[in-house]
Amino acid sequence: MPQNRRKAAILAIGDELLSGRTRDLNIHFLAGWLSDRGIITQEARIIPDKQDHIIRAVNELRETYDYVFTSGGIGPTHDDITAEAVAAAFGVDCDVREDARLILQNWYDARGEELTEGRLRMARIPDGADLIANPISGAPGFQLENVFVLAGVPTIMQAMLKDVDGRLDHGPVDHVITVRGQALESQLAEGLKSIEQALYGVSIGSYPGKSGKALMVSIVVKSLDKTLCHQAAEAVAALFRSLGATPEMLTPSDQDNI
Amino acid sequence: MPQNRRKAAILAIGDELLSGRTRDLNIHFLAGWLSDRGIITQEARIIPDKQDHIIRAVNELRETYDYVFTSGGIGPTHDDITAEAVAAAFGVDCDVREDARLILQNWYDARGEELTEGRLRMARIPDGADLIANPISGAPGFQLENVFVLAGVPTIMQAMLKDVDGRLDHGPVDHVITVRGQALESQLAEGLKSIEQALYGVSIGSYPGKSGKALMVSIVVKSLDKTLCHQAAEAVAALFRSLGATPEMLTPSDQDNI
Repeated sequence: MPQNRRKAAILAIGDELLSGRTRDLNIHFLAGWLSDRGIITQEARIIPDKQDHIIRAVNELRETYDYVFTSGGIGPTHDDITAEAVAAAFGVDCDVREDARLILQNWYDARGEELTEGRLRMARIPDGADLIANPISGAPGFQLENVFVLAGVPTIMQAMLKDVDGRLDHGPVDHVITVRGQALESQLAEGLKSIEQALYGVSIGSYPGKSGKALMVSIVVKSLDKTLCHQAAEAVAALFRSLGATPEMLTPSDQDNI
Repeated sequence: MPQNRRKAAILAIGDELLSGRTRDLNIHFLAGWLSDRGIITQEARIIPDKQDHIIRAVNELRETYDYVFTSGGIGPTHDDITAEAVAAAFGVDCDVREDARLILQNWYDARGEELTEGRLRMARIPDGADLIANPISGAPGFQLENVFVLAGVPTIMQAMLKDVDGRLDHGPVDHVITVRGQALESQLAEGLKSIEQALYGVSIGSYPGKSGKALMVSIVVKSLDKTLCHQAAEAVAALFRSLGATPEMLTPSDQDNI
């Protein structure tokens, strides 16, 4: 893996994500979005709305990875404590900031609504942070050094990424081919190992699954080098055929069907 | 929160979960399953199939929490390295173990299939571990002290929990009532804070959402004390009504509709 691809971590914050009540949707989306930009997600964590827990995780992750993306905990209610906790992690103050207050004031003025005390909580921004625009509901996210603090509601989180995109160093993107066929993982195991060892710069993942009643396995071949990726995929397809299976090759545009 | 509820962490292992290719399904399921048993999930992590990363995470989590549940990486292919990595985290050896080999031998014999070299990889069990039965595909998981190593395929992971259940200390289970109504989170913020402060032993979470075109918010009230939980839910309902909304109360059996 080349040095010039940035490494990222995702930190989803919210008690509801750990109680079995709400399924986190942001990690999967963000990981795919970053992957499309040649940025590698190396770790994701889900933690509760607890100040000490947020501080510890933010500090561990921002020291380890190039980028950290948090989601959740920046709304108007008492359980939204992410802004203060991130500020505390950096050792800076966090209070209502005039630029953020003005954004909210204009947002609610334009809608004939009031900037209540609860809503004003959403203008609390750590000192030194750059705001991240929120075209869906007004209240901004923010960036503090390599930490991007985003909303938890998936539509808002996704919309905030438009403003984040230009601030990231994109990297080369992997070529990916999935070879899918009717076989048992265990029958392919030895052959896959040999292919990966023979073709340096290729990584191969094996994912069992079902298609109707048949046992299928998807072999995902990745490389920065297009030729190498195709070579490896051909070798995997040959391995399937040696077992009497008829493999299909899927390129990324087909991937959604897997 | 009483001392007698055990705290758990979940560690989902797999490159595919961090590339945007595969959505993890195990964290959400396990968190709900544990919650039903009065065990509190305090953290979840998703990490790649990398030995040093697995060792670090397993050691951090097992020292911090009462239970750690891992999913993924115990299949027959070259990228399945969880068993060795967990053994390394504990500083014990990991090799094909006779009890596990016998389970696989019987499993494949009964199906007229061969115990190939790849399949034999699934009998590698760390020294001192207790096996966890796998009624779906034979190959066992294992428990090493407070770490439970489970399969990544959701149906298999879930089936393994039957054998795990009796090994866990269950705790008292929260009473939960969700009060849902048409309002803005920011209008409720101050009132919710007051209710939570007035009723010690109640925790209140606020989750914005949509129902058709209307903006809805779900307020989740939790307490170990049933009376207190109902009292808090009534106070939240009154808060909704003071804003002109008509709240609905949902008990856990209704929760699936949220």
